[in-house]
Amino acid sequence: MAKKPRMVRVMLVGLGSVGTGFLRILQRKQQELSDRYGLAFRITAAADSRGLAVDADGLEPAALVALKEAGRGVDTLDAFLPGAAAADLLGQAPCDLVVEAAPFNLQSGEPGLSVAKAALSNGIHAVLADKGPLVLAYAQLAAAARRSGAALAFSATVCGPLPVINCGRRDFVAAEITRFRGVLNATTNFILASLEQGKSYRQALQEAQAAGAAEADPRLDVEGWDTAAKLVIVANSVLQTPATLEDVAVRGIADLDAGDLEAHRKQAKTLKLLAVAEKAANGYRLRVAPAALPADDFLAACNGWEMGVTFDSDLYGPMYFKTWEREPGPTAAAVLRDAVNIFRRV
Amino acid sequence: MAKKPRMVRVMLVGLGSVGTGFLRILQRKQQELSDRYGLAFRITAAADSRGLAVDADGLEPAALVALKEAGRGVDTLDAFLPGAAAADLLGQAPCDLVVEAAPFNLQSGEPGLSVAKAALSNGIHAVLADKGPLVLAYAQLAAAARRSGAALAFSATVCGPLPVINCGRRDFVAAEITRFRGVLNATTNFILASLEQGKSYRQALQEAQAAGAAEADPRLDVEGWDTAAKLVIVANSVLQTPATLEDVAVRGIADLDAGDLEAHRKQAKTLKLLAVAEKAANGYRLRVAPAALPADDFLAACNGWEMGVTFDSDLYGPMYFKTWEREPGPTAAAVLRDAVNIFRRV
Repeated sequence: MAKKPRMVRVMLVGLGSVGTGFLRILQRKQQELSDRYGLAFRITAAADSRGLAVDADGLEPAALVALKEAGRGVDTLDAFLPGAAAADLLGQAPCDLVVEAAPFNLQSGEPGLSVAKAALSNGIHAVLADKGPLVLAYAQLAAAARRSGAALAFSATVCGPLPVINCGRRDFVAAEITRFRGVLNATTNFILASLEQGKSYRQALQEAQAAGAAEADPRLDVEGWDTAAKLVIVANSVLQTPATLEDVAVRGIADLDAGDLEAHRKQAKTLKLLAVAEKAANGYRLRVAPAALPADDFLAACNGWEMGVTFDSDLYGPMYFKTWEREPGPTAAAVLRDAVNIFRRV
Repeated sequence: MAKKPRMVRVMLVGLGSVGTGFLRILQRKQQELSDRYGLAFRITAAADSRGLAVDADGLEPAALVALKEAGRGVDTLDAFLPGAAAADLLGQAPCDLVVEAAPFNLQSGEPGLSVAKAALSNGIHAVLADKGPLVLAYAQLAAAARRSGAALAFSATVCGPLPVINCGRRDFVAAEITRFRGVLNATTNFILASLEQGKSYRQALQEAQAAGAAEADPRLDVEGWDTAAKLVIVANSVLQTPATLEDVAVRGIADLDAGDLEAHRKQAKTLKLLAVAEKAANGYRLRVAPAALPADDFLAACNGWEMGVTFDSDLYGPMYFKTWEREPGPTAAAVLRDAVNIFRRV
């Protein structure tokens, strides 16, 4: 078993909480990765908002983590390449795998989209933690991967560690999934729970932000776009249905009033922001909207930091999955899972 | 896409509810299997308790189903080979895959064990729906598969359609699973619920049998051995811990008395027959025993025909999976899933 591990050269794009979480796990699990999977990951390039650093001998994960903890960028490294962009360098950089964990941008998908396209068209495997490129250009990315033979994996984008995408793609073999439902966003969980306790929308939002559940700009969450983005990814990858955000009927939770909530409470129902894909005559109907769920609905009990999904299909019977995630560690682990599953010795 | 599908020649051992369920799905999903996975399954051999029939041109799934529905055996087929045993013929039969769905035998593992051994040592892939061979000889079967390069799959053996084994093996990459828990047996779910309603053990058992949940001989269920068998499979395949039934502390539900139940009911707790694997200094501690779960425990809500599991790990955060299965269709689908995942074009 003392065989030398296979070296995987990684360009890591995005050094936020998921990117640095990935580096921390690489460091902590180095021995495990070698012993169990025969793999050694070397970070040969790293990009953040300041630019790109490249070192074929490998950048130290610990040093990159320390850099970000100190609030600095890759522009302070010896390996910094002024003016270089990750996407432009992918054809020439020493790189077998791109891990793309840049910030979520639902308008342009950048910088992730260019990086993902460049990787896949050059035959370089890509693991995405960033929903943007998938939501905006799933078909294009999948086609590029098919053409070049590169793998495209993104199990971290929907419910982080919960293997929604993996199970959806691998474990419903030959089935028609008749309905998919999900509670996919913790911020709205928090806000809805507070509203049900009689708090004002403003107060509920402030509390969610204090708990760390909401972004400073929470519109992606409360207007339903984060949930819709995840549904689009499920539709394309699991349900084999080409879809973009325009195909999803989206209603967020911002326009709920006290009367709605009071009525549901009286019926012992729980409000959740629900993503639903339902099989129709022609493909799937996709929607995101607040839904009043009876107490015995599996998703009614997805509270706080929990996220969950249900699958109904013609062959496998109903399935229910959920997880709990407060810090991005589990999502970073999902990135590593994808990377290992691409290269592991089967 | 009109490429000719790859033909997979299957020996099917066991024509009970799972075996015939598998045949029904093959028939119903023939087009789907060809279009989506590029595969065509041909049953070139079929065995039941009466013997073995072999036909290189293929036995019709519909004809085999009709045979069993009529209460007949393969000995009434033209293709019947008097005196032949599946295990003996595996080296010579026209066969790329064995599907082993013979009755569960916890003493000898037969006839499945011999079939699985013969297949794997001849480099023939094996999909098992039968726990027996895995519980009695996991290490030996896994070693035979490694040596010959054949695949060994058995996702149907633990919670049927629920991808407990698949997720456990593929989606906890690099992690240490610190605890696994499961409610893995519907019969005991039914009996415990009835006991909690104040019924006698005898009455509860009769009702479970009437509901179709319990075998005529329910000892495997109520004494905990069915649950323990599943835990042994999880330990070996997911937790990477060599284990047999002797490594599991097993207590069933047959010795529960009314006093126990009354005490739990007063504390608003629910009794479940729980399988637990807990990481200890040296490997995992394995046990099966009745446990009083608080109402907010995920597994407390696995009722009736539901089965569920939880995973805790050092990287991925807690995960919860459950399913509901009354008829064996979903388990048969899990057998097909394993078969397709061995041969599918990735």
